[in-house]
Amino acid sequence: MAEKHVVVLGAGFAGLHAVRELAREPSLRVTLVDKNNFHLFQPLLYQVASAGLEAPQITFPIRAYLRKYKNTRFLLGGAEGVDLEKNTLLVEGKPVPFDYLIIGTGTRTSDFGLAGVSQFSFGMKSLDDAMRIRDRVLSACEEAVKTSDPERRKALITFVIVGGGPTGVELAGSLGELRRHVISRDYPDLDLSEVRVVLVETGNRILEAFAPKSARYAENYLRHLGVELMLGERVVEVLPHGIKLLSGKFIPTFLPIWTAGVTGLALPGLPTVRGNRVATTPYLNIETAPGIFIAGDLNYLEGPGGKPYPQVAPTAIQQGILAAQNVLRELHGRDKLPFKYRDKGNMVTLGRNHAVAEFTKLRITGFPAWSAWLAVHLYYLIGFRNRMMVLSNWAYSYFTYDYAVRIMHNRHSFPLETAENPLTKGG
Amino acid sequence: MAEKHVVVLGAGFAGLHAVRELAREPSLRVTLVDKNNFHLFQPLLYQVASAGLEAPQITFPIRAYLRKYKNTRFLLGGAEGVDLEKNTLLVEGKPVPFDYLIIGTGTRTSDFGLAGVSQFSFGMKSLDDAMRIRDRVLSACEEAVKTSDPERRKALITFVIVGGGPTGVELAGSLGELRRHVISRDYPDLDLSEVRVVLVETGNRILEAFAPKSARYAENYLRHLGVELMLGERVVEVLPHGIKLLSGKFIPTFLPIWTAGVTGLALPGLPTVRGNRVATTPYLNIETAPGIFIAGDLNYLEGPGGKPYPQVAPTAIQQGILAAQNVLRELHGRDKLPFKYRDKGNMVTLGRNHAVAEFTKLRITGFPAWSAWLAVHLYYLIGFRNRMMVLSNWAYSYFTYDYAVRIMHNRHSFPLETAENPLTKGG
Repeated sequence: MAEKHVVVLGAGFAGLHAVRELAREPSLRVTLVDKNNFHLFQPLLYQVASAGLEAPQITFPIRAYLRKYKNTRFLLGGAEGVDLEKNTLLVEGKPVPFDYLIIGTGTRTSDFGLAGVSQFSFGMKSLDDAMRIRDRVLSACEEAVKTSDPERRKALITFVIVGGGPTGVELAGSLGELRRHVISRDYPDLDLSEVRVVLVETGNRILEAFAPKSARYAENYLRHLGVELMLGERVVEVLPHGIKLLSGKFIPTFLPIWTAGVTGLALPGLPTVRGNRVATTPYLNIETAPGIFIAGDLNYLEGPGGKPYPQVAPTAIQQGILAAQNVLRELHGRDKLPFKYRDKGNMVTLGRNHAVAEFTKLRITGFPAWSAWLAVHLYYLIGFRNRMMVLSNWAYSYFTYDYAVRIMHNRHSFPLETAENPLTKGG
Repeated sequence: MAEKHVVVLGAGFAGLHAVRELAREPSLRVTLVDKNNFHLFQPLLYQVASAGLEAPQITFPIRAYLRKYKNTRFLLGGAEGVDLEKNTLLVEGKPVPFDYLIIGTGTRTSDFGLAGVSQFSFGMKSLDDAMRIRDRVLSACEEAVKTSDPERRKALITFVIVGGGPTGVELAGSLGELRRHVISRDYPDLDLSEVRVVLVETGNRILEAFAPKSARYAENYLRHLGVELMLGERVVEVLPHGIKLLSGKFIPTFLPIWTAGVTGLALPGLPTVRGNRVATTPYLNIETAPGIFIAGDLNYLEGPGGKPYPQVAPTAIQQGILAAQNVLRELHGRDKLPFKYRDKGNMVTLGRNHAVAEFTKLRITGFPAWSAWLAVHLYYLIGFRNRMMVLSNWAYSYFTYDYAVRIMHNRHSFPLETAENPLTKGG
């Protein structure tokens, strides 16, 4: 067979696993394209936001990953479009021709067109996002110590998370621990009762993807930790100094974190469906462009029951592997295999010793779930060094109740001076 | 005695040690002011620049340090001036009154008025500086893989350090190891002989503060590592695409790192001498403003022999402690003590197993010096967690020959397109 060129776009779970499969065929030429030079382990991103982990510990340099795959090259760059006729991917103005293309670009935060969300709220998808949240929390606490305006102070130390899915819940738990164990000790001049971590969710319970019993357990633990739950509340607008709810309530805050929805990062040129995702055949390729495979959060394939597969890491890993295998099968003249989802269960961590885990026939909470969560995350984290560093950090935090990475890289300034204070006017 | 207010400006070695002394007197009110919320362990900064250590590992949150000092508060902010008449320090527009002021603001990079240095060269004083260098090295390597212009490629992978003092030498050694052990493996498409680490020094040898024999040892080891030494070469101008030397030579580079000099960070209102430093009495206070003490790199006090004390960490620590003790002595009606410098020796590390250390009667090199260097730096690094993390990182790098923190936070773009290439015109 003539040398074929497979381009893999996106170094997330799907892309990296695809590359690993493609390495089995040394005669293939593989190019991995990403706009960053690192793989990001998104499941632990919230711990970077809450000062628990250092940013490099949940990342892995792509070139280090590729060292052992001699048939693969890395290309740093943002992809701008696909030409389905010419079979080329446009990367920063330059066309990259391919025989096969596997796309795993995932999703980005979606504002659903709500006013103010994209301007004033903080996303939680990228490493930059997480570091911006950390800087914001630290900057806000420093500013709160200095201000003499009580309303401004309260708004500064009110941290609001919109969205009660796993990301929102894990971040809420983690900021709740930061508040209780770190802010309380670092800022003796702040009144802890004024420091608020608020979780806003439209539904009448959090963790929709979990059983009601699990959600109730999580809600109780978060409340116990001091997190305020505002359930059945819909955001209508985000302003520079707070969040307006449909109920008429206004939450003064300078840190509205938006975890309430995502939209597919489909490239121009690709046919899209609901949520800007890309529909595929069960073999994960596009019907009208069979050389292009979509794996991970971007893929919209309905499983048995007519619902799309969940946008979680196990789906991305399984689809990345299958997409690559189907490329190889086609090259070897064998039939492609359809996607079969192996449900790995659902997990969410709430805080020290507390988590929820659901498997097909088993539902666990508390310390067993938390231990399982730790083990699974360490296992999937790439790199011996990262595992060692993250485990050391966790052990340190566990025994000292400290979130050690409280380094403010960029200090934030805050809008509104005390003289004219719209906060007290309720927005 | 009535409650007195001591303000300590700068959370470097001098400031932190001053605060620790002042904590012995619980009736004092102490305020520590810094523009960052962390202490930076500058001796290891170059390892952040060369991707060996993570930024938070060489920093320590100031508020965590102050937890045990109940008489001390932290104020985040940049100081803008001192009013010697009213005894107030101006911090971001607000006057902070003091009875005593201990200043340890240190130095910043000085360009000596040379053209282009402040615009185009990279400093090595702050955490930001180090992270910018790391991002630049990684961005340049990625760009070099993509460019088809050989001259542009060579300039991209030429890293030039100006200044053969300890900072320049340690950075050169560390980038030399990055080149040999990491770039060689991460970028199989680059020709390693084109990747250059160049150290430019005006004098005819490096490490002026060390014995000639030590300098020779260091020069030999750096050359062995593949670092090019350009001795007796004076920089006359830094351009966006290279460095012009007095000899007429031009080094094409997009990463000129400037470690060739510093100038004191004296606040407006303070009387300054040579190098923008502040002269003090042997008691470390200013003759005309006896309530103000200067400690560390900013202090200009001549020792026996008429030379000012060296601008190194041990001087800062000793002066920070003495300044605080003299404040306490004065408050208790006791005589102030003059500064007596205890020479702790000089150390510089060159690479794995190689360092130079000089003590009053002893000069060591190689593995013993390198071990001593490791031990001393771990000892002075603040925080159990940082020591644990740094040691883990070092152990990892030592056994794997890997510099693991190759995360590009901000990708740099580079001037000059291939179409019009001034590089080949020699600037």
